[in-house]
Formats: sequence, C-alpha cells, structure tokens
Amino acid sequence: MATINIGVIGLGRIGRINSRYLLRHPKGARLAAVSTRRPEDAKKFLDSGDNIKIYTDYHDLLADAAIDGVLVVTRTHTHHDIVIAAAGAGKAIFCEKPIALTLSQTDSMLAAVKKAGVLFQVGFMRRFDKGFAAAKQRIEAGDIGDPIVAYAVSRDPNCPESDWAAPSNSGGLILDLAIHDFDMLPWLMQDEVERVYAEGGNLACPELAAVGDIDTAIINMRFAGGGLGYVEAGRNCRYGYDIRCEIRGTDATLQIGELRDTPIMALTPHGVTHDTVAWFEERFTPAYHKQLDHFIECIRLDKPPLVGAADARTALRISLAATRSYHEGQPVTVAR
Amino acid sequence: MATINIGVIGLGRIGRINSRYLLRHPKGARLAAVSTRRPEDAKKFLDSGDNIKIYTDYHDLLADAAIDGVLVVTRTHTHHDIVIAAAGAGKAIFCEKPIALTLSQTDSMLAAVKKAGVLFQVGFMRRFDKGFAAAKQRIEAGDIGDPIVAYAVSRDPNCPESDWAAPSNSGGLILDLAIHDFDMLPWLMQDEVERVYAEGGNLACPELAAVGDIDTAIINMRFAGGGLGYVEAGRNCRYGYDIRCEIRGTDATLQIGELRDTPIMALTPHGVTHDTVAWFEERFTPAYHKQLDHFIECIRLDKPPLVGAADARTALRISLAATRSYHEGQPVTVAR
Amino acid sequence: MATINIGVIGLGRIGRINSRYLLRHPKGARLAAVSTRRPEDAKKFLDSGDNIKIYTDYHDLLADAAIDGVLVVTRTHTHHDIVIAAAGAGKAIFCEKPIALTLSQTDSMLAAVKKAGVLFQVGFMRRFDKGFAAAKQRIEAGDIGDPIVAYAVSRDPNCPESDWAAPSNSGGLILDLAIHDFDMLPWLMQDEVERVYAEGGNLACPELAAVGDIDTAIINMRFAGGGLGYVEAGRNCRYGYDIRCEIRGTDATLQIGELRDTPIMALTPHGVTHDTVAWFEERFTPAYHKQLDHFIECIRLDKPPLVGAADARTALRISLAATRSYHEGQPVTVAR
Amino acid sequence: MATINIGVIGLGRIGRINSRYLLRHPKGARLAAVSTRRPEDAKKFLDSGDNIKIYTDYHDLLADAAIDGVLVVTRTHTHHDIVIAAAGAGKAIFCEKPIALTLSQTDSMLAAVKKAGVLFQVGFMRRFDKGFAAAKQRIEAGDIGDPIVAYAVSRDPNCPESDWAAPSNSGGLILDLAIHDFDMLPWLMQDEVERVYAEGGNLACPELAAVGDIDTAIINMRFAGGGLGYVEAGRNCRYGYDIRCEIRGTDATLQIGELRDTPIMALTPHGVTHDTVAWFEERFTPAYHKQLDHFIECIRLDKPPLVGAADARTALRISLAATRSYHEGQPVTVAR
Repeated sequence: MATINIGVIGLGRIGRINSRYLLRHPKGARLAAVSTRRPEDAKKFLDSGDNIKIYTDYHDLLADAAIDGVLVVTRTHTHHDIVIAAAGAGKAIFCEKPIALTLSQTDSMLAAVKKAGVLFQVGFMRRFDKGFAAAKQRIEAGDIGDPIVAYAVSRDPNCPESDWAAPSNSGGLILDLAIHDFDMLPWLMQDEVERVYAEGGNLACPELAAVGDIDTAIINMRFAGGGLGYVEAGRNCRYGYDIRCEIRGTDATLQIGELRDTPIMALTPHGVTHDTVAWFEERFTPAYHKQLDHFIECIRLDKPPLVGAADARTALRISLAATRSYHEGQPVTVAR
Repeated sequence: MATINIGVIGLGRIGRINSRYLLRHPKGARLAAVSTRRPEDAKKFLDSGDNIKIYTDYHDLLADAAIDGVLVVTRTHTHHDIVIAAAGAGKAIFCEKPIALTLSQTDSMLAAVKKAGVLFQVGFMRRFDKGFAAAKQRIEAGDIGDPIVAYAVSRDPNCPESDWAAPSNSGGLILDLAIHDFDMLPWLMQDEVERVYAEGGNLACPELAAVGDIDTAIINMRFAGGGLGYVEAGRNCRYGYDIRCEIRGTDATLQIGELRDTPIMALTPHGVTHDTVAWFEERFTPAYHKQLDHFIECIRLDKPPLVGAADARTALRISLAATRSYHEGQPVTVAR
Repeated sequence: MATINIGVIGLGRIGRINSRYLLRHPKGARLAAVSTRRPEDAKKFLDSGDNIKIYTDYHDLLADAAIDGVLVVTRTHTHHDIVIAAAGAGKAIFCEKPIALTLSQTDSMLAAVKKAGVLFQVGFMRRFDKGFAAAKQRIEAGDIGDPIVAYAVSRDPNCPESDWAAPSNSGGLILDLAIHDFDMLPWLMQDEVERVYAEGGNLACPELAAVGDIDTAIINMRFAGGGLGYVEAGRNCRYGYDIRCEIRGTDATLQIGELRDTPIMALTPHGVTHDTVAWFEERFTPAYHKQLDHFIECIRLDKPPLVGAADARTALRISLAATRSYHEGQPVTVAR
Repeated sequence: MATINIGVIGLGRIGRINSRYLLRHPKGARLAAVSTRRPEDAKKFLDSGDNIKIYTDYHDLLADAAIDGVLVVTRTHTHHDIVIAAAGAGKAIFCEKPIALTLSQTDSMLAAVKKAGVLFQVGFMRRFDKGFAAAKQRIEAGDIGDPIVAYAVSRDPNCPESDWAAPSNSGGLILDLAIHDFDMLPWLMQDEVERVYAEGGNLACPELAAVGDIDTAIINMRFAGGGLGYVEAGRNCRYGYDIRCEIRGTDATLQIGELRDTPIMALTPHGVTHDTVAWFEERFTPAYHKQLDHFIECIRLDKPPLVGAADARTALRISLAATRSYHEGQPVTVAR
C-alpha cells in the first residue's frame, strides 16, 4: 500500500489537530510537509524526526510533486486563493469551513476544483461525530418517521478575540458558528432551507460591537417541504462548549449532544454535579480524526468525499441569508 | 377561621382537577357549588355527601350569596360573559387561560373587574411549578447574572380534537399552547417582548388544516432590553408531554423540565430506557393545587394575586402578535 | 358510603404525615381521634374545626366504639402493647415498621391479631412507591427474566439523635433502616433470604458509639433459590436522602431511585448541578398516602392488606440475623 | 530523542489493543517486535511496512538486544515464566493483570524483577481512566472528607468461553474480574483491606459450573482503618459493559461510571432510550493508551511506574482471600 503524502497549509489550532493526527500515520498516510509563516514554531511543534518539510510559502508546498493532498486550514479569507492554486497544482483538497465568505468566491473556487477534476472535501466534521452520524443513520432507516422539526444550539464557552471575529475576517457569528448547524439540519432533515429569519444581539461579549459583530443569534428556518427549524448560536455561555441538536419526527424525536466530559458525579450538600465539555477539541477530536481518515481513503480509492463542494455551498447560502435577515429585520429567501 | 366557599363554573378536565382538590378542603376552603350543563355527570363525579349545590346556569351560581369566589374553567369563548357577570356579582374570580381570544374582550373583562374592585387571578399555573418557581427565584437572586436568552418548548403528546382546536374556539395553536410560554419567558427574563416572528405548519396533525389551525410553530422574540427568545409549540410529539424552558444568563444557564415520570430505569440489550410524562396532569397537578391555594389565600387575606389581569393581557398580546406574524410572514411589533 | 373513622395513636413525624392526609377525607375516611401525650400540640396541629377527639391515653381511644381502625405510629418499643390492646378492642390495625424489636414480641402481637381476627397492615410504604411498584410489576410480567441479584442503598442525610437511635429504642441501624430493604428485596426477588453476613462501623456519626449503635452497615445476602443480594445502610451521607435499588435479571436489569427533587439544572462555570431529595417526606409522601388509601380500602371491603403480618415477620427475621452477624463477625442463617 | 523499542509478547485481544497503539509511535516509542504462536495472523494484523520483527518464541524476542521493554500480554498462567525470563534479559516489563494466580508465583516474579533491577508495571489500566483518575485526585485534595465506604460493580455483557474461564486458567471470576476493583478500592480509600467475605453463584452462565467457575460474586470488605467496601462482579448482564464505582466520604460522595456510549437519545412512545457501552474497549481504550504512555515515559526517564509490583500483590491478595471466602463460606483475613 503506497503512502499518501499530505501537506498541511496553516498551523493554527485546526492545523495542529490535523497534523498531530497525521503524525500517527493514519490509514497509511503521513504528514509530508507543512506551510506556515512561523517555521520556528513548526519545528518545535513537529519535533522533527519524521523528515517533514517546512515551507513558508504555500506555493512551494503545492509545487512539491510528492504531495498527494493538502489541508487548507488557514484563515477563511485566504482559502480562495489557496484552493484555486491547489486545484491548479492537481492536489486533492481538504478545506476547512467556511470555505469562503461570499458565494462568488465560493463559486470560483468550486469552478476551479471542477475544472481541475481534483477531489474536494469541506471541513464539516460534525458529520463524522458518533452522535450526529447515529442520528443520520436512524433517520434514514425511518426510525423517527418523517423529520418535521430541527433544532440546534451551538454555544462557545468564551468570547473570541475581536480581531479574529471581525466580520471581514470570520464572516461574523452566523457564518462562523451557525454554519455547522446549517450543514447539519438540512442533512438530517433531508431537505433544503427555503426561508430564514434571524434576530441577533450583543449580549455576552459587548466588545464585539466595536468590530461590527454580534455574539448571539436566533435563526428561524422554513424548509422547502414545509418542515421547520431553528438555531441558537452564541458566544461566551461560560459553562462550556454546548452543542445540541434535536430532530422531531412524526413518530419519535432524537436528541444529540453531551454536556459531560468526565464520567464522574459529585454528590454534595450543595447538589449533584458533573463537569462540562470544555471546548471543541474535547467534543470533536474523534470526528476530526474520522474526517481525515475519510479524506485519505477518498484519495486512495479515488472516490468523491461524502462532504463536498455542494455541501459547502449549501451551508454558506443559508448563513449568508441569515446574516442578511439579521441586518434587514426581515425574512429572507435563501438564494439558489 | 371562616370557611371560603368556592363555586366552580365548568366541569371539564380543568374544572375537575380543581374540584377534586377543593373536595380536600385546602386552606380552609370548600367546594360549595358547581355550574354545569350535565348535572347528572356532576352528581356522579361529586359523589354527594358534602352538600355541594349543582347549578345548570352559572347566573344562579353567581346569585348564590354564600359563594366567595368562582373558578371560570369553561371554554375560552365563554369567559368574557361569565367574568363580567361574576365581577358584577362581586365574586373573587379565577379565570383559566387564555381569558379571551381578543384584546378588546380582554380589556372589557378587565375593566369590569376593576370597576367592581374584585380579586382577579389568571390560570398560568406554571408560575406555581417547583421548577419554574425555583428558576424565578434564582434569577431574582442574581445567580445567573443578567438573563439574555430565553427558550421554551411545549409539546403535547397527541392531536387535539379538531372541533376543539378550531381557532374560533381555542384561538389556534399559538394562543392555546404557546401562551404559557409567553407568560413564562417575560416573567423569567424580567422584560417585555417587543417584536415576534413566527413560522408554523401542518406537520403532525394534518386534519387540523381543515379547521384552519396549525400544529407546529416556532416563534422568535426580541425583548425591549435587547434580550432574545424563542419558542417551539407543537402537537402530537407522540412520546409524551414535553415542557422545557432554558434561561441563559451572562454568568450561568438554567434548564427547567423533566421528561421522566416514574423513578425507574430499565437496562436491556436494546439500551437504557425510562418512561416519559404522559400528559399535563402528571406534570402540573401540584402546580394546579398551589395555584388554587394562592387564590384561596388571596381571598382570605384580601390581597392581590401574583398572577393577575396585567399578566393575562401581556401573554395574550404576544400570542396575538405571533399569530399575526405567522399569517403575514413578517415580524410583528407587539401591541401595547 | 359510610365514613371510615380512623384513630391515630402517636403524633410524631409519621403520625402527622398520616393525620394530615386523613384530614383530606381520603377514600371516604376521616380522622376521628388522636392519642398523644401532648394534647396542646395536637390541638394546634389539628386546628380543630373537624370535631376530632384528642385522647391522652390510647386505651380511651381504643374504647371509642366509633373508631373503625387505628394507626399505631408511636415509638417501636411501645407497638407491642398497643397492638395487642387494639386487637383486643377489635380495631383494624395499621402498625408502623418495625412492628417490634424481637421475634417473640412480634409473634405474640401476630397471635393476638390472628385470634381477634382483625385486619393488620404493616408500614412498608415503599411497596406503594411508583418506582418500586413498577419494578414489581415488570418483574412479575417477566420483563427481566429471572431475578438473580438484588442491591439496595438506603442513606439518610443526617445523624439521628442518639437517644432515639439507641438499639434498645430503635433496634439499631440495621433494624431501623435496612428493614425497608429487607422487605423490598425478597419481595422483588420473589424469594426468601437464607443467609446473611454483615459488616458495620462507626464512620459517619461517631457519637452513636456511645449509645451502642453503628452508622454504616453492608449486608450480604444469599437467597434460598441461589440468588444473591446486598444492602448498604448508612446515616449522615450529607448530600440528601438516597434510596436506590437494583434488580438484575437474566435478561435485563432495573434501577429504582431518584436523586433529584426539583426539575431544574444549573449550568455554570463550575459544572452542571441539580438538587437532591432532602428527606423521606420529599421522596415517599405519595407512597404514605397510597398506603393509607389501601388500609382504608381494606377496612371498607373487608379484605386482607397486601402488606401484612407475614411480611412484618420476614423483614424482622432478616434484620435480626444481620444484626447478629455484625456482632458475631460470622455469616448467620436466617431463623424461620 | 532516542526511539524506545517495544516488544509485545502475545497478540490476543489485549496484545492487539497495545500493538495498534504502538504503531502510532506514541511518546517516541515504536513496536519493534512481536512474539506469537500464529505468525501468519501477526503478519496480516501488522500489515508490515514498519519493519517489525515477528518471533514465534518469546525467548528470541527477549534475546533481541534492540528491545528496550516488553509487554507481557499472554494468558495468565504463562506470565510467571515470561516475566522471570524478561527480568533476566534486563528488559523493562509491563505485565497484564493478574500477573499470576498464586502469591508464591507472584513473589518469585517480583523477586526476579527486584534482583534484576528492571522496571515493572502491572496492567491496572483503570488508574489511567479519566473518571477514576479524577476521583483519586479529588479524594487526595480532601474534597469528600475522609473516604469511608467504597462500592464497585463490574459486569461483563456476555459469558466467557468456558475453557478460558476455568479457574486453572483464569483464576476464576473473582481473580479475573474483581481484581480490578480490588486494585481501585484500596487506592481510592487510601487504606488496606483487612477482611473479606464473599458469596457467589452460578446464575447467569450455567455452563461455567462444569469448569468449576462461578458467574456472580458479592464481596464484603473491611478496611484496616474501619472503612467498609463491597463489590459485585458478574458475567452476562446482557445490557452492556457496566463498570461503576462509588466512594462515600464524610463530606461528599463520588460516583464514577458511564453507561452511555453514543451522545444520542431517542424519545419514543415507548420511552426515552440511550445506548450502553458495549465492551471494555469502548470504555477503556483511552486508559490503555495512557497506561502505555506511562510505561514508555518511565523507560525513557528511568523512573518507577505508578502501578508496580506492590500493587499487583495487593490486589492479588484480596482476590485470593475473597475466592477462599466464597469456597469456605466464612470471612477471611487478607494475608500479608
């Protein structure tokens, strides 16, 4: 079995989660190269030994003929140029979500990918989570009857840094955070979102107002087939990383989520207490790993990934419509 | 301590819950009379013995000078005339929610009550529920910081009878069911609702479409102080009576609700299973009792009830605005 | 339907729970008389109005021909004489557990009851608890296959008063507290206990050593049919009143118990917390009520109660054997 | 950082869990060699590529000078000879529990290890489990006051193969299964077990009677400092792999365990259901990994492991005493 050589572009938090996993040689792949603006940090992080090339310009990494596939895990606004270059270089591409902040950028990226005929996977890792995957499987098996109502909560424990959160950089709360729910809900409802209405506000991280972002949003959704959905996305809930989803069907309802990390309860005169999930790595690291396994497997078997270009576009369309609805104070039809 | 004589107008489901409790002589009160169109059923139900008068016309009950207070627990569209007559008769009045289907009726009822100077309590029994009351107390104590997001789910286990559910009779799903949430959320958020947006549909009880009602609604809310809220109200969830509420504060979050009725779990090769709460009597009977205790106590001590005319009007205003939003497909400002 | 007149002998904690319920006229019964050494307290507690006789000598209550049945809810060491006198007076008898501290006293009480032909019910109220009753029903329905292992925990939140706990008064920890479990486990296992082994100690309430009692016991049980059981009984667990039971069957396992009282959870930076059940009234008041309903119904229909003399004797035999095993440090065969 | 070369002796279930992890190069270690009687299976399992030597005689593996440490993960009765040979070869040794079936074998193994001065770790992986480790930490921090009562349940989902379970091979139920609890409870109670009493039976896997083993045991324990403990160990509970532990302290109580594997709940007309943990790999794989990390780190830093020879001996002594108690029907003092 030939080794699959992976190049990682960007060594931020997500880049490191993925690199750490690649260092374990999953599914016959290896971390062949990284591209980063801080090569010294990379050396330290990688601890050498494994003959990994460190580039400071991603073009050089893309020019490396030994590389089979790349992970684009840089900041969102840089994805467009990198993905187009990677497609031009004929690499299989994994791109972190959101792949871009606009539909036009998205479309030019997807066109480049299509033209080059390269594999393209988008980083909606929740699809690989045990809980969400079990829900999908049961819904497809008909266990809940027809899915009719979808609900999701995504709460971050802290406030993001303002620079990072600025809409020009992150796309804003809805695009950055609720986009995961906008991927999950249509997938689980097996339907398209037709109309959204969003309320939002600066309630938990007042400093974000200065960079033009909100910290809390409630989004109402109507699906094409008549089903309904709603999403709460919020920063700084303080108690942990709280990701929940609920799908009501005509026969039964599924609730996905887990707020406990350590299997221990304390029974004290002040009540019964368990801990919470601290942050997304505690909750989704196995999903990040399975997502990468899938990318490697798709490269090896030359098959299309389960979460591809169309999915990236779908979630982005809903996110953009919801963001617009928030600004306009009116329901917005989701663009095709 | 003088006995408080209570007359019950209407012996439907709610009338019987209250009558059964009055038969126990709570707080020195007694069931003195009932008014019902089916006196034979009433005789059977009351099992005599306690010298309870049975009227077939509520005017006769109101004319009974021995009666101190009345419970108006008939169908909603009859509340208006009965309450005005009861006020005219100088009785203390407890009226089941919603007190009317329109603001104008509500206002004429409240005017009559005010003019007569009689005690008036409205049947938002959730305020007397252990869980909701604990939440209120903790929020007032500052335990969660400032409340910023409110969420409520109200799911009935079955479809209502179509006749009963027809908007001309019940006011429609939002007015009948979500009105409880529209009482709870402003109370817990300590704020007024300013704007609502509602989506709804016929997803779980298709037969309701024929009488012009929906079975599912998702309502988005903006509070005057900037807080956000959302409510799901639905019929026929099949698995039980599911009443949940969540209040996010700047420091902590409270979740109210209980989906288990019997303290037993079964561990089987098919998983770990507990039962659910079957219907509202299983969930809220203690709250109905405490609500009645409060009414009796207010009569005895001649003090205003905690849930009065203004509360009835507030929840109705939100319900009407949400119903209109659903029909118009636009956000609606809640009328003063 | 003729009213059933009940006399309550003893107005301690259990006496008051029962009296309060009788004041509501359950199942056509009424509280006709009480016997207490503190008549002033009784007057205050009963708040008159209902024409209840207050005796200071239980013999006078027993001589009252209007009384149909009596509740013997005095301290354990007084049960023997009262029950024999009540049997002699031809009253239906409800006796709180344990009915006596020795088998010989128990046998003379049961002989007197038998000779008089009066109804006799013992206060194992857990049989009327929703959770335990559901377990019994499922086991009898064959839902768990053959029951093979039984486990019970009974933890009190505080230390008892030493005077009260002294073995000469209460019978000691095992007889006072674990006797409930020794009633439950054979009932749920549908089998007799053959052999017990007990360890115990002074770990949580050191002051009890001075009166010769322990505060913690672990008891191992072997059933006649080969099944196994074990019980932990303890004082002063601090966090609440914790009553759990688990029955393993060849096909499935049932867990009975509930450690949460109020349906609310707090999600804070320190974890997720709910409250606990404070004390036995919070946990078992509905069971006390159903137990009394059953007593009244048995009087009315002249039928034998579900929890009678034989059950009182069974649980006592196991308790005495376990107490002896603790003292001797050896397994003890349960006397017939 | 020099690579640590690990040899794995035995490629059964536990051998494979460990080998799979070593293939990921944890902490700078690598799987250098395996010893197995089925080299063809090993080739398939290892999928070559990584230059791993496959021996069919463990002596050859021990003679390999490149090997720094070995994992002894063969059947229990073979541990004695292998460990002594490994010590003689100067290898660091990790030995799966139980390290032997008798105290005399254990002592000769530990003597050999001591004489050779080699590192010795025993496979009590629960010490590395997140839940158990958190309990230990909190107890040491004084969070629960003095630990006074310890409880553990270990239930396997199925019956073992009779050949494997035969006491001459596995040591019998108590030695094979409860030994984990006999490691955990003294560790968490911070005390020695002084006396045990065991009941047992053939209740769930009748076929084990033919090979002289039981399937269920309840063990009572008295600690030297007066604390109490009890353990249930059982086969074939059918519903999953159920490992629970509870430590009562004078101030608070800790409950360790988790019966849910997938973060999803189904709400259906038949109740609310979640899945269970299927088997020990689902529950303890992260603990197996951390245990191996620790072994590698101890080799690298030349420091003594946290779970060493004395711990192996302690848990064995209790297991043997409990086994004897079951056979004799008497409490047994734990041998020094």
